[in-house]
Amino acid sequence: MNVGVCYFPEHWPAERAEADVERMAEAGIEYVRMGEFAWSRFEPEPGEFEFDWLERAVDLVGEYGMQAVLCTPTAAPPKWLVDEHPDILQAEADGTTRQYGGRRHYCFNSPTYRRETRRIVGALAERFADHPAVAGWQTDNEYGCHGTLRCYCDDCASAFRGWLRETYGDVETLNGRWGTAFWSQELNSFAQADPPRHTAADHHPSRLLDYYRFCSDSAVEYNRIQTRLLREADDDWFVTHNFMSHYGELDAYDVCADLDFASWDSYPTGHVQERREHVSEAEYRAGNPDNLGLDHDLYRSATGEPFWVMEQQPGDINWPPYSPQPAAGAMRLWAQYAAAHGADVVSYFRWRRCLTGQEQYHAGLLERDGEPDAGYHDASDAAAEFDDIGGERDADDGESLAVPDADVALLHSYDDLWALGIEPMTPDFDYWLHVETYYAALRERSVGVDVVRPTADLSGYDAAVAPSLYLADDDLADALGSYVEGGGELLVGMRSGVKDPYNKLHDAPQPGPLATLVGATVDDHESVPDSLESGVVVDGERFDARVWNEWLSPADDGAEVVARYDGGRADGEAAVVRNAVGEGAATYVGTWPGEELARTLVGDVLDRAGVETTDPLPAGVRLANRGGLTWVANFSADPVPVDAPDGATWHVGDDAVDPYDVAVTDAAPSSLAFGDRPNDA
Amino acid sequence: MNVGVCYFPEHWPAERAEADVERMAEAGIEYVRMGEFAWSRFEPEPGEFEFDWLERAVDLVGEYGMQAVLCTPTAAPPKWLVDEHPDILQAEADGTTRQYGGRRHYCFNSPTYRRETRRIVGALAERFADHPAVAGWQTDNEYGCHGTLRCYCDDCASAFRGWLRETYGDVETLNGRWGTAFWSQELNSFAQADPPRHTAADHHPSRLLDYYRFCSDSAVEYNRIQTRLLREADDDWFVTHNFMSHYGELDAYDVCADLDFASWDSYPTGHVQERREHVSEAEYRAGNPDNLGLDHDLYRSATGEPFWVMEQQPGDINWPPYSPQPAAGAMRLWAQYAAAHGADVVSYFRWRRCLTGQEQYHAGLLERDGEPDAGYHDASDAAAEFDDIGGERDADDGESLAVPDADVALLHSYDDLWALGIEPMTPDFDYWLHVETYYAALRERSVGVDVVRPTADLSGYDAAVAPSLYLADDDLADALGSYVEGGGELLVGMRSGVKDPYNKLHDAPQPGPLATLVGATVDDHESVPDSLESGVVVDGERFDARVWNEWLSPADDGAEVVARYDGGRADGEAAVVRNAVGEGAATYVGTWPGEELARTLVGDVLDRAGVETTDPLPAGVRLANRGGLTWVANFSADPVPVDAPDGATWHVGDDAVDPYDVAVTDAAPSSLAFGDRPNDA
Amino acid sequence: MNVGVCYFPEHWPAERAEADVERMAEAGIEYVRMGEFAWSRFEPEPGEFEFDWLERAVDLVGEYGMQAVLCTPTAAPPKWLVDEHPDILQAEADGTTRQYGGRRHYCFNSPTYRRETRRIVGALAERFADHPAVAGWQTDNEYGCHGTLRCYCDDCASAFRGWLRETYGDVETLNGRWGTAFWSQELNSFAQADPPRHTAADHHPSRLLDYYRFCSDSAVEYNRIQTRLLREADDDWFVTHNFMSHYGELDAYDVCADLDFASWDSYPTGHVQERREHVSEAEYRAGNPDNLGLDHDLYRSATGEPFWVMEQQPGDINWPPYSPQPAAGAMRLWAQYAAAHGADVVSYFRWRRCLTGQEQYHAGLLERDGEPDAGYHDASDAAAEFDDIGGERDADDGESLAVPDADVALLHSYDDLWALGIEPMTPDFDYWLHVETYYAALRERSVGVDVVRPTADLSGYDAAVAPSLYLADDDLADALGSYVEGGGELLVGMRSGVKDPYNKLHDAPQPGPLATLVGATVDDHESVPDSLESGVVVDGERFDARVWNEWLSPADDGAEVVARYDGGRADGEAAVVRNAVGEGAATYVGTWPGEELARTLVGDVLDRAGVETTDPLPAGVRLANRGGLTWVANFSADPVPVDAPDGATWHVGDDAVDPYDVAVTDAAPSSLAFGDRPNDA
Repeated sequence: MNVGVCYFPEHWPAERAEADVERMAEAGIEYVRMGEFAWSRFEPEPGEFEFDWLERAVDLVGEYGMQAVLCTPTAAPPKWLVDEHPDILQAEADGTTRQYGGRRHYCFNSPTYRRETRRIVGALAERFADHPAVAGWQTDNEYGCHGTLRCYCDDCASAFRGWLRETYGDVETLNGRWGTAFWSQELNSFAQADPPRHTAADHHPSRLLDYYRFCSDSAVEYNRIQTRLLREADDDWFVTHNFMSHYGELDAYDVCADLDFASWDSYPTGHVQERREHVSEAEYRAGNPDNLGLDHDLYRSATGEPFWVMEQQPGDINWPPYSPQPAAGAMRLWAQYAAAHGADVVSYFRWRRCLTGQEQYHAGLLERDGEPDAGYHDASDAAAEFDDIGGERDADDGESLAVPDADVALLHSYDDLWALGIEPMTPDFDYWLHVETYYAALRERSVGVDVVRPTADLSGYDAAVAPSLYLADDDLADALGSYVEGGGELLVGMRSGVKDPYNKLHDAPQPGPLATLVGATVDDHESVPDSLESGVVVDGERFDARVWNEWLSPADDGAEVVARYDGGRADGEAAVVRNAVGEGAATYVGTWPGEELARTLVGDVLDRAGVETTDPLPAGVRLANRGGLTWVANFSADPVPVDAPDGATWHVGDDAVDPYDVAVTDAAPSSLAFGDRPNDA
Repeated sequence: MNVGVCYFPEHWPAERAEADVERMAEAGIEYVRMGEFAWSRFEPEPGEFEFDWLERAVDLVGEYGMQAVLCTPTAAPPKWLVDEHPDILQAEADGTTRQYGGRRHYCFNSPTYRRETRRIVGALAERFADHPAVAGWQTDNEYGCHGTLRCYCDDCASAFRGWLRETYGDVETLNGRWGTAFWSQELNSFAQADPPRHTAADHHPSRLLDYYRFCSDSAVEYNRIQTRLLREADDDWFVTHNFMSHYGELDAYDVCADLDFASWDSYPTGHVQERREHVSEAEYRAGNPDNLGLDHDLYRSATGEPFWVMEQQPGDINWPPYSPQPAAGAMRLWAQYAAAHGADVVSYFRWRRCLTGQEQYHAGLLERDGEPDAGYHDASDAAAEFDDIGGERDADDGESLAVPDADVALLHSYDDLWALGIEPMTPDFDYWLHVETYYAALRERSVGVDVVRPTADLSGYDAAVAPSLYLADDDLADALGSYVEGGGELLVGMRSGVKDPYNKLHDAPQPGPLATLVGATVDDHESVPDSLESGVVVDGERFDARVWNEWLSPADDGAEVVARYDGGRADGEAAVVRNAVGEGAATYVGTWPGEELARTLVGDVLDRAGVETTDPLPAGVRLANRGGLTWVANFSADPVPVDAPDGATWHVGDDAVDPYDVAVTDAAPSSLAFGDRPNDA
Repeated sequence: MNVGVCYFPEHWPAERAEADVERMAEAGIEYVRMGEFAWSRFEPEPGEFEFDWLERAVDLVGEYGMQAVLCTPTAAPPKWLVDEHPDILQAEADGTTRQYGGRRHYCFNSPTYRRETRRIVGALAERFADHPAVAGWQTDNEYGCHGTLRCYCDDCASAFRGWLRETYGDVETLNGRWGTAFWSQELNSFAQADPPRHTAADHHPSRLLDYYRFCSDSAVEYNRIQTRLLREADDDWFVTHNFMSHYGELDAYDVCADLDFASWDSYPTGHVQERREHVSEAEYRAGNPDNLGLDHDLYRSATGEPFWVMEQQPGDINWPPYSPQPAAGAMRLWAQYAAAHGADVVSYFRWRRCLTGQEQYHAGLLERDGEPDAGYHDASDAAAEFDDIGGERDADDGESLAVPDADVALLHSYDDLWALGIEPMTPDFDYWLHVETYYAALRERSVGVDVVRPTADLSGYDAAVAPSLYLADDDLADALGSYVEGGGELLVGMRSGVKDPYNKLHDAPQPGPLATLVGATVDDHESVPDSLESGVVVDGERFDARVWNEWLSPADDGAEVVARYDGGRADGEAAVVRNAVGEGAATYVGTWPGEELARTLVGDVLDRAGVETTDPLPAGVRLANRGGLTWVANFSADPVPVDAPDGATWHVGDDAVDPYDVAVTDAAPSSLAFGDRPNDA
């Protein structure tokens, strides 16, 4: 496991470079990412390439024993290119052009821009092919950032028509799959299909979902142009892309099919401000460990390989509403926490606070004056600890601890995310917060989690948790049924089995194709404003339930009732049921469980599946296991005393973990205990 | 009184139709609405009409003893038509086109679309003329839905110029009526007049008001194209249109002049979430009886004929922020409540939950699987009860109970709604909530209310309540003066007599032409933020007043003071005055009364007018009288014991009315009592 | 000191004019402003001028012993001009045209409109040159109102390119000054520079700042066209412009360089609702005295001459969210308060409530019926008092009391306002509220304040307070250093010395060039959400601090620590430091002080500087001194007893000042006392 850094030599005088690179090496940094956004330096005038400056920097990096990661500069085409080819710009749904002036000012489907992309990426790849200090490439930067995943320009209109033709073959099939008799929305030809531009009334949900799929596919296809060119030039290079946090809407699984491994950009104190109504002081200071861990697990699972944090928050940042200073040591905590989840490299963004442009309020490892800031010391500490931890295990720098094992699969799908985003049906429904509710309940028990598609092979998992299998067909039902039949424990959450893959209702009661598996159907559903009472009773104990309630009707000889609604319109109706199938069981949860109910229901599933767990951990504390080591990460403002077995070795820290601190031991998670500290946030 | 249903045979396999129709008949349904939005099925290719499928459905309906109501499909022109004629699309005020993709994607003033409308409506009318199973027609669907009443395209610009020329004759008259010397807004010719498109500063209120009038007139004119074609084809047909709830901005009185009767689309749990800050649990479950009753009374009064509920909420719905399940029985309660207010047909929307398109989260009488949902049973119950109630009275299915009598007129005007919407002068002013405040105070006393224009003939009413006669001229003052002179009791609320009909201030103190009638003038007005104290005293008792305070000065020998402000800037000033005129009196209320003050003031007016009333009813309980029968409707979560006179017959239910239940008796409203249940919500 | 009024004779029948003018004279009015927005009356048809009507009005004003102030009508070009030249219209950043329909529908950079401006202003100037009753001119009206300071049209694009060329000479210099290597934002030529139109991502802060500068310069240049034409026609005229409240973004100092004196439009109950989260009842009734006084001092300081209130609120107004009636006497209080701060004329807007157009809900001195409203009596009282006060001192009507002296300079800059508006970095940061915090602390001690640029000559001031010197260079540091060296007491607030004048970070620790002067640097900064704890300790006492915290590190032999953070992440770090330099000292405040902390810190500075002050005044009470007289202004709802020295003469009122009342005495502020009324709002 190693530490990296993102470096922009073109922002500084050339004579400064060696001092910078030397200082990186001193900090224990192994990877230096460069070249991102530098098109105007690579090609100051049309057709006149200048790569020498980058080569000098790469050479320097190599001279100091480090490796370079290069970026294609396509996220920021220069002004001369935009002025020559204004057709590359995106359009809003209302037709407004997204102009030059920031970044990501190009359309994935622009034939012009694809040609320009091939030109610049090809030239770069050719120049740096076989350079010994170049380890690999990052394509572009954060596809979809700033809401640019979806464009509504004429190039997209053309491409969408082609995508539909390829998907459906003939327009009658499209009409049938979408169900266009509704409101006279039948198309006579693919040429009549448009992007879902500004309208007075709502759009057809099937058309929208396909547009979202098309947009994601467009980015995937665009990325593939780059990965192919890079691999053609040098097939020893790795190729990755730096994803955003899980608030992104791009299908990361699809992109990852073209990558060697995934990387992502981790800004814990920013991400935590994006969805939650209430942010605690500890979250302002260090983020939320499950909000963070879910991304680590997602991007690791997307390829099954160790991932990178390509950009790690180095201190205060510029883009969230608030930017309180991170807690002392938080930048090291994040690095260790990433490693614990399977990161091989944690690369801080950026080397030095930039004096110009849009990110001046974003810290670097160095301050504006070039002197070390808090992040520098944290990064250096993490690098030293990584060396210690990896010492006995890593064969060399390039080979790290094994990918963490996971006993449980969390089933997640971008199609479900998109479809539920099209019809949330209450302002309180948020797909990701719902997923995080279950993820937190799993992680609170120290369980290893893979985040995978519902259609993934689940045979290696003791249990699977699917917060919402919104779009479901018979194939999915069969696969999940076989899993449970064979002994798998499956939890399926509310809003599952509602629609077919084309975003149409099934003509059978919810959960449609999944009804047999869960042994029950949904009689009624309702959204629940906060002002209405909503709760369930399990074994005589009352728990909060919220946002969405479904009233379940077990089939004859079907599921047993685990929980019933208590009070409100659904009083006495079944809320949670469990159906024994073969050697396993499927649990269906008809509501959005509060924290306590999630703890209870997920705990039951884990116990039934025989997964090795801890007791629920104290709030803000999380364990993660990788390569036989256990990380104890403390995201809370309180110290955490650890009760470890005699003879446990501490590779990092010891059994008294300070606020925002981390310790690493060879004791197994289940052998650790944490006293009786209350586990409420 | 009968039950109907909205049916879309084109959404389902043809072989399903007969089973559906048979099941409708079994439920007691008498009317089946069809054809809405079906243009792409009526004319799959330009000029190729296909009406057979609808005729088969109409035949089936007739075979099962029911009647069909057909719809013109103009609310949803098909894509081929839009692609051929993109000029039919509307434009936003900022010039953005409202594109194809939902519904209502056409401009009322498009000459092209008017021609296309004549073509399709003419063909449909010709085909179904004299069909014995077709009772009548609904034109288009919900004019103005999705904010489409007002368009800013070039066709509208041309039409607006013509409208102004017709209205004012010469541009000097327009300049004078509007008052365009202000900010150099004088026009030299009608050709200079534009729609009020996007500007940096506010628009001229007189120009805006005329544009709003023009937009309403445009819809009226467009509708008339359809009504004429339909009547030309078969003058036995009725012709109606399905209006939206009173949040609509289209002048329903004007449209109704071309209709046989009005119908409207009633979604109680949705409407109640549109304006109120706080929605109670009972309102989430069944709506608010006065929010609902105001629409029933408005659309009945608009033609003086029994109205239809063309679309009755059948269960959970898709468009409000929240959709908790309606209370058990609510769908029957709504049908009975509509009948009590003068509905002859209550037609549920829709027959079966649609599997495709934009309204999948909208319930039907049947669930997605074709099996009866709660609404089916409620509808069937209502149908049976309608038969029982009508049994002795209805000559046959076509003839129902008489239209309810009303002792009181509630004066309401779209011009006032528009003008006050242009200059609300505080974020807390809402025309409709202000009207509802008075309507609730009337209905709480079980008074029959007609909702009519201020210029209506009031001679048949004992009292008239005018929440805001904002635009007023001498003719109105004369008419109201004669009414009071002759013994009428008139209540006039704040913000009355402020402007002339062109939205200019009168050059006399408010209430301008009404000052003589109310015997007082307004010295000052102010908007009142919630954080400031505001109240009045009547007979030593203090009441809340809010939003807007006017300080009144009675004329010499003019009005007596009924209430004075207590505290705040207006402390001691007159807030409510009463002026005896001839055999009646005019009461002027200079503030927005809280619930208690409205109760007191309206109660006084009713008492003075000798209107037969009940005591204030318990919260959520309302009585309505039609054809000698009294409905006791319970919109609350509590049971209501009724104290009825000996010998009272109960046609529906009995003297113990359950939550969300209804009972019908032949006892008069004033003979019923309800114990001492508190009347606060 | 005199009273004036804004009059629109063209809004009323010609025969009404003499009665109006006579009544003005009776009220003691001396100046009548006319002609504003009257282009369509000056030139009803292209090229056909009609100025007779205005000349008649001017003559009348002269006949009644008053003076006319004329306005150029350019804020409202007539429709015929817009239709002939639609290119004069502005564009939004997204390209939407700002259409005709209100006012300010023209672009400052339109060559067409500049030509039209010369035509109409030239014709007016020629016509009224040497008219004895015309005292001077107001150019246009409230430049920038309705968000029109910044336009994004093609004319602006061209002009911006020219402005950049003039500013930077060559594009390499621009690239260097902005720092365009970031995100490939390098320009190859000035022709590539665009206005910052709609983009997906943020704009470059240096480009934005220059665009804001350019927009302000464009208005300045446009205004200069008018001032030159007017002065060419008659150099006895004064020329002024009526600015808006300090929420405006136009650089008033720059505009004032072309004016004889500044005037501004004062609407106290409106301005107070623009930024504050909480508005008190007293503020709804009379505004906030410091919000108001800051504008008086700003516009006085901008030329160093007595200013005018060109538009004084006359009663209720139309544009804020709420418009409670002003307190009785408030319109007189405002006039006196303006005079106390250096106003020579207070001109009420408008004479009579207008019956037409956009401002019907805006009071006048006369009501809609032409009868005096409360404002008329207040204005008349103020006029009489002004005569009394000025009696012994004013040589004649034209010569008033001297401009008030100021011991303290408040340093303020539009560049800082713009730059901090581009990167506020927390939703809670508001430049003006931050400035007001310090201004209030100064005025609470009855100190005279000039509001000047940071680069102003400070030699005449005992102390200087600079809430945020965000953009700072060595020249500024040198000038301020010399000031302190020579004995000046300087307070510098947080977010100072962050950037260079091109909106780039300094490459030295904050406060960059100011570090030597303040003897400390900033180690870290953070934004602070309200939910996090934040406070400082001074001399053992704890005070609230908020919004933004900087942790200071005194240099060796540098500043002493005045306050340290208490609790939170910065616990124990230095928050406020003081550095003795030569004969003075510089105090640096690293946080946004709460009211109490501002009182303490500003009090210390005043004490050290030996400024004569009062004790902190009661809330809502302010003293101001001009020409040897002291005004006691009471903006609170409570009476204020004044403890004045024996022998004090009261020119207005006496030592018992009623709510919203004012008194004037010849006793010095420091000789007055106000008992022990608590000073919290």
